[in-house]
Amino acid sequence: MTLKAEIISVGTELLLGTTINSDAADVALLLSEYGINVYWQTVVGDNPGRVIEAVQRAKSRADIIITTGGLGPTCDDLTKNAIAEAFGLSLVLNEEEERWLRNLWRERHYTSLDITPNNLQQVMLPEGSTALRNDWGTAPGCAFRAEGVLVIMLPGPPKEIRPMLEHRVRPILASLSDGIIASHTIHFFGIGESEMEYQLRDYMNSLTNPTLAPYAKQAECLVRVTASAHTREEAETMMAPVIERVRGMFGDLAYGMDTTGLPEFTTKLMLEKGVTLATAESCTGGELAKAVTDIPGASAVLKGGVVVYTNEAKTRLLGVPARLIEEKGAVSYEVAVELAHRVRELMGSDYGVGVTGLAGPDGDGVHEVGTVFISLADSEGVWVREKHLSRRGRENVRLYACQNAFDMLRRRIAGLDLEGKVFP
Amino acid sequence: MTLKAEIISVGTELLLGTTINSDAADVALLLSEYGINVYWQTVVGDNPGRVIEAVQRAKSRADIIITTGGLGPTCDDLTKNAIAEAFGLSLVLNEEEERWLRNLWRERHYTSLDITPNNLQQVMLPEGSTALRNDWGTAPGCAFRAEGVLVIMLPGPPKEIRPMLEHRVRPILASLSDGIIASHTIHFFGIGESEMEYQLRDYMNSLTNPTLAPYAKQAECLVRVTASAHTREEAETMMAPVIERVRGMFGDLAYGMDTTGLPEFTTKLMLEKGVTLATAESCTGGELAKAVTDIPGASAVLKGGVVVYTNEAKTRLLGVPARLIEEKGAVSYEVAVELAHRVRELMGSDYGVGVTGLAGPDGDGVHEVGTVFISLADSEGVWVREKHLSRRGRENVRLYACQNAFDMLRRRIAGLDLEGKVFP
Repeated sequence: MTLKAEIISVGTELLLGTTINSDAADVALLLSEYGINVYWQTVVGDNPGRVIEAVQRAKSRADIIITTGGLGPTCDDLTKNAIAEAFGLSLVLNEEEERWLRNLWRERHYTSLDITPNNLQQVMLPEGSTALRNDWGTAPGCAFRAEGVLVIMLPGPPKEIRPMLEHRVRPILASLSDGIIASHTIHFFGIGESEMEYQLRDYMNSLTNPTLAPYAKQAECLVRVTASAHTREEAETMMAPVIERVRGMFGDLAYGMDTTGLPEFTTKLMLEKGVTLATAESCTGGELAKAVTDIPGASAVLKGGVVVYTNEAKTRLLGVPARLIEEKGAVSYEVAVELAHRVRELMGSDYGVGVTGLAGPDGDGVHEVGTVFISLADSEGVWVREKHLSRRGRENVRLYACQNAFDMLRRRIAGLDLEGKVFP
Repeated sequence: MTLKAEIISVGTELLLGTTINSDAADVALLLSEYGINVYWQTVVGDNPGRVIEAVQRAKSRADIIITTGGLGPTCDDLTKNAIAEAFGLSLVLNEEEERWLRNLWRERHYTSLDITPNNLQQVMLPEGSTALRNDWGTAPGCAFRAEGVLVIMLPGPPKEIRPMLEHRVRPILASLSDGIIASHTIHFFGIGESEMEYQLRDYMNSLTNPTLAPYAKQAECLVRVTASAHTREEAETMMAPVIERVRGMFGDLAYGMDTTGLPEFTTKLMLEKGVTLATAESCTGGELAKAVTDIPGASAVLKGGVVVYTNEAKTRLLGVPARLIEEKGAVSYEVAVELAHRVRELMGSDYGVGVTGLAGPDGDGVHEVGTVFISLADSEGVWVREKHLSRRGRENVRLYACQNAFDMLRRRIAGLDLEGKVFP
């Protein structure tokens, strides 16, 4: 029997529109991985009556209710009280969570001051529930079964609910399912979602199990292949030919599988290969180096970076000739070459990457806003990509510039085709 | 009388979690501007029965129903049929919209081929409704009044609904409302949401109009003050004493009003004051420079930055003595001083900021993961903050380190108290 779940999000900030409900999407994605159907999502404010009404309705329709938000220490955090009331349960202090929270409080506040009473509200859970430890915040979640319904309550902040879903909820859902749902994601750079969907459409529609679904994500694309089977092995066997066919259709536009994205993929590739990088960033202003150092262990990869947002910095930090900048412009092919080449020499790294461009919104009177040159230097030469990313907005111009840098790196490291070689 | 509205979003992609429901937030934001209360948001899939059920429930509770999604030409776009059925209305062809759509079709397809029948579905609207021309897509929205309820139907794609809200819905809402809702946000750094809420609770509960609400956001906090009044001026007069009192309660922990956050606030402050900055980042790896350069015009502020993630880079790029690093450790008070001081000298900027720490997850065998030293140098001295951000996770350690750097800068620039002066 296919299970039915409902998602109830609690928070006045959602009704006011000051927060977008990304939690509901995160919960729904996980549920769909386990083949659990969602027919309704409801958002209510921090109002006990309406939370109870939403829960009453949901429990008459669903096997699983997942709530997000309203577990914190402030007085508008009332989800637990309302849910407990809807099921006729009392709230009881969970002693283990209390010990954990008191410890956390001491560590964070370096104080002998006792924890404030409102903070202890967080460890009051409906009787009979299992606490879901929140190692990414302070308010634990919980899960209980009552009236034939499984209720799972999760905190609202995205940085908390995401790991909670992965590490606390996934095992629960996995245990409910008699088969398994397995999926892989194939990741692409250099093709848009709609183009990919267009090329895949016939094949996609011909499949029932496994299924294929394309998604756009942070200046790249992915295709999720999902199989429903009795065992993991069976699912893998079903997915293998589909994955092979999709990868075959798009050649080296597909860069990897099951990764969080091109920055992580490329950084880990550099770690594996034991190669080093130095960055010289103008318009990306540190974003590229940040993306590399988002990955633990990046100190073995990134020998160093410079943020040379101004012409003066390009000359002072890297010795790019002021005359070259004056003649060719800071946003130029020639300056891009110098950035990659010189930062590599300066830091003694295997690869040097440079980025110079016009992120906008203001132009320089010469180039179109969105013009970016991305360069890569190694011991065998320098390559430059010129991109015109107008109409995408400042933030996206910077993001795409970084993505192109990672794409050039992963292509060069893997010995794939890389256009735009400048010299020697 | 305060009007009540409900938002019903239609789309299976929302229930699957592959699309985040930003539409509901956009609609809610506009409604709250006109003081229209939203108590419920519902998401249903492309299923006529459930759309009808959601509408039946909403019309018993609300004065206004706004739907998003399901207006397009594909067979799963069924919102208009379901809504018409829920109100016992027929769909009729809107001739003006038909002419417009046929024109658009010809312009887009450069063809003499006639429009396909599924495309004409889009201009079938409930009888008696006013078409809302969609200049940003192909499916018009519509608005009608029935059974005492105002129904507004809008397309789903964010690029269409946003301008539709601004140019089609705003005038309708403005005509309904006899007052306005205005709000300000007061921004804080250096205090947690729960601590702030604890201190504010009594005052907050004593207020009805204006109201106060605290929020946590990206390693900082804010309090939103909201007033309902007849005019903007009246609302401002009502909010002024509340803002003054809240700011008074928290002194210089409140750094600003109506900003997107401390990075933007501080960068704009530097722009205004015409002062310059140079950054030397170890554990933040470019994140600080990126945050500054997120702001357009930052080239006038950031003279340059270095990412000195490795010891070698600290020595090569800044000349931090290798011996000092060896004796004191890269994560030390002393190295932090050198970073800020030396990058300022190197770049000739007014301020130099350094960050060195252990973001984790791996330690160095000496410091606790989460130990960070943030330093600020100007012509009058160097200041260092030591922070212990363990258990927050790598991403948050880096974020808090950047936030502390911005806080030190804004305090120094504003001539506020800044602890941790090292020399002279």
